[in-house]
Amino acid sequence: MQKAVVLVSGGIDSTVLLFSLRQREYALHALAFHYGQRHRRELACAQRQCETAGVQEFRCVSMPFLGELLREGTSLLEAGGPVPDLDDIPRALRDQPPTYVPHRNMLFLSIAAAYAESIGADRVFYGAQVQDEYGYWDCTPAFLERINSLLSLNRRRPVTVEAPLLRNSKADNVKLGLSLGVDFGMTWSCYRGETLACGRCPTCVERLNAFKQAGMPDPLPYP
Amino acid sequence: MQKAVVLVSGGIDSTVLLFSLRQREYALHALAFHYGQRHRRELACAQRQCETAGVQEFRCVSMPFLGELLREGTSLLEAGGPVPDLDDIPRALRDQPPTYVPHRNMLFLSIAAAYAESIGADRVFYGAQVQDEYGYWDCTPAFLERINSLLSLNRRRPVTVEAPLLRNSKADNVKLGLSLGVDFGMTWSCYRGETLACGRCPTCVERLNAFKQAGMPDPLPYP
Repeated sequence: MQKAVVLVSGGIDSTVLLFSLRQREYALHALAFHYGQRHRRELACAQRQCETAGVQEFRCVSMPFLGELLREGTSLLEAGGPVPDLDDIPRALRDQPPTYVPHRNMLFLSIAAAYAESIGADRVFYGAQVQDEYGYWDCTPAFLERINSLLSLNRRRPVTVEAPLLRNSKADNVKLGLSLGVDFGMTWSCYRGETLACGRCPTCVERLNAFKQAGMPDPLPYP
Repeated sequence: MQKAVVLVSGGIDSTVLLFSLRQREYALHALAFHYGQRHRRELACAQRQCETAGVQEFRCVSMPFLGELLREGTSLLEAGGPVPDLDDIPRALRDQPPTYVPHRNMLFLSIAAAYAESIGADRVFYGAQVQDEYGYWDCTPAFLERINSLLSLNRRRPVTVEAPLLRNSKADNVKLGLSLGVDFGMTWSCYRGETLACGRCPTCVERLNAFKQAGMPDPLPYP
């Protein structure tokens, strides 16, 4: 069976991706990342979903150095400034908001591609989707195209990055996940990472809107 | 003063790069990486050279997870197979030899670019050079061009990667380093990382040839 690497975060998109890949013939090697994020409770969700999905292997890569290196650049890290409510982020900043983590996907995909090459997998999947409420340059079709252009320079068997949900909205992913039997109560999105999801940070707002558009309630409790 | 990030390994190329950058007006933030390499004694050289060069800051990023993730893919890691002599590597494999570490420069440059963005530096320097005896795809002009193409998608101030020594041979770098007063006795290349440099692994052979071509002896002792 062909091996493939899949990035998992414990959020909606990567969990739906994970379950959608179950229908394809891969031995899945899942990678999650602990990079100093406030919302590290997402990692327990990622692990649980991987167990349910029956992956070949789940690994959580620990990168404590990132919190130290990037503390000035993002509010998503425990070492950074506070996470703003979506409503408090000016429209002009929403294409690269304070919750952006510099070069995060490039870094994660570099590690994933290295791992894939090392174990003889020729593809890496990640769960980028169309973002409605805010955005990151490393979740775009252009990013995918250019990272593959870079990876294609490998002189042996290049690793390819695929993002099958890239044209989906989060509501599309919620619907797809329901059809795949995903337990969304065991996913985590909130950037603030407190006991309850806040319902106001950018990703909570996006998540709640997605469930509303999909016509079903979010199973997570909110304050 | 403008900030710039520079990757340092303690080897000839990155040390010469470091000293050549002293002549330009940058506050230099140096990054070294401990990624499970056998030859971690290079890191002490990197730190010492950075102190001599008077950088603003020296950081060594510790990534113990790489040894675990990549142990099947390279002989450069302590967890990997043995480092071969250059003479034992078939010609057909020298464009991507067993000492290749999958996606290493992409990973290092992702971290460096993230760090640069976070501290407000707009460029990252690394010491790629023309390789004569063997080679890696992540040290080529095409790699540089495509990683910059990828980085240019950043929606704020993109970080640019520069490799000013990209067209130099290692002999060119030895000569340039001599003119800049580099102490090559405080550099380390040997992949085997034992007490003495071995003189036979790919990078030792390249290093010794470079000193020969530059018309001076390598100040390091060999067995």
